[in-house]
Amino acid sequence: MKSKNSIQNIVMLGAGSVATHMALALQMHGYHISQVYSRTSDSAKILSQRTNSGFITDLEQLDTNADLYIIALKDSVVECLIKKLFVNGIVVHTSGTLPMSLLENMSRNYGVFYPLQTFSKSRPIRFDHIPICLEASDDESLAALKQVAATLSDKIYMMDSSQRQYIHLAAVFSCNFSNFMYVAAADVLRDHHISFEILIPLIREFFDKVTMMEPWDAQTGPAIREDKGIIRKQMELLDEYPEYKEIYRQITEKIIERKRKETNS
Amino acid sequence: MKSKNSIQNIVMLGAGSVATHMALALQMHGYHISQVYSRTSDSAKILSQRTNSGFITDLEQLDTNADLYIIALKDSVVECLIKKLFVNGIVVHTSGTLPMSLLENMSRNYGVFYPLQTFSKSRPIRFDHIPICLEASDDESLAALKQVAATLSDKIYMMDSSQRQYIHLAAVFSCNFSNFMYVAAADVLRDHHISFEILIPLIREFFDKVTMMEPWDAQTGPAIREDKGIIRKQMELLDEYPEYKEIYRQITEKIIERKRKETNS
Repeated sequence: MKSKNSIQNIVMLGAGSVATHMALALQMHGYHISQVYSRTSDSAKILSQRTNSGFITDLEQLDTNADLYIIALKDSVVECLIKKLFVNGIVVHTSGTLPMSLLENMSRNYGVFYPLQTFSKSRPIRFDHIPICLEASDDESLAALKQVAATLSDKIYMMDSSQRQYIHLAAVFSCNFSNFMYVAAADVLRDHHISFEILIPLIREFFDKVTMMEPWDAQTGPAIREDKGIIRKQMELLDEYPEYKEIYRQITEKIIERKRKETNS
Repeated sequence: MKSKNSIQNIVMLGAGSVATHMALALQMHGYHISQVYSRTSDSAKILSQRTNSGFITDLEQLDTNADLYIIALKDSVVECLIKKLFVNGIVVHTSGTLPMSLLENMSRNYGVFYPLQTFSKSRPIRFDHIPICLEASDDESLAALKQVAATLSDKIYMMDSSQRQYIHLAAVFSCNFSNFMYVAAADVLRDHHISFEILIPLIREFFDKVTMMEPWDAQTGPAIREDKGIIRKQMELLDEYPEYKEIYRQITEKIIERKRKETNS
């Protein structure tokens, strides 16, 4: 049961993947999405239809009396937008990188609602176990945001703007960059008529390991063994792949450096 | 039921992780490990006890009439060892990088038995779904190796020495290097008192994606969006982490280059 002061009406600013997944999840949990704003009317129209809400492409038409405003837009767009707005409810952005203080002139109550997940419009996702990082300007806003977050997920973290930046940086390494390592592997295999499928059990084993041990303790391969014969042969193979050769050299070097540092300490 | 000519007695050369896991799995499936060879008697003694087999540290004592010899040693050691041996059974190595031809003077029948997995002595592993890449000097040896492989795993691939090298290279990128991206993430989080656990749902989502779509289609993040604001801020944060800054710059650059290439083609 919601308390008297809790959030009921939500305005979603943005109609991209994050906005879409959040709006649908919030609606499913009984919140009312009253408006969807997007500069391009097509995406806002689709999302407003799916959430039975009004859609606007002009901020002049913004309902300034909603309980919560969620800004789920590209960082550069957020920075432009905030100069034009002042509202009465709580305003949050969903960015890992922008500081909370950016919103201080938009409302008396503001904060950050950062879901740590990768969203694609086409791929359904369950919010249940998605970590949500919260920060707020005041205790009352924090309590209201916690209540919303708790209806979506069982993993809620309090993180200040500085910590959130490092979480985002760590997410880029552990997800975007490790995915690019899969891209490199897929390119090499495709050129030699080998299905990527052959790597899945190995990738699965590394995923399982990272859930139960320190990543460094799970490190294997020619670099950590300093197997110079293999490293030399693989560097030769990479003459075919100049786009990956320097990455191979760099990462191999860093693994070796780190191992020596650990051994000496 | 094994045919008359099938493999019964196996000599394991090596007592490291690969040798240990293979010997135990083979024994469990009814093969007899007759001897374990290792230069260091401790590890050979332990493995020979676990497999009820003889242990030797001197190749002079090698049983030259076993059905199968599995060389599971570091590549550089294999290259030394082969000059000293001639046996009657089938000889295989387990290396992703060494060519099969290396073994041609050791026996009339030779091949490669390359399990595509990462092994740690302390972590039990089921062979059932581990891809095993086979290559053999002749049809009869291949048939015998297939029979052994099929008792261990349901994923058997015929791969020549050239393909195997690229598989190994792809495994280094997709597993060892992506694991090092987790190491970087863990370092950054640890320094800011944030548990690595917060990243697990995100890493899991990327693992799920790679099992069902092309890695490049799953690529997200600031680099592929060419979000220069975030990239600049993250590069600034990485002033604290010179060991990771150049990796960040390199990979970001390569993702952007690849995106532009795809867009223009």
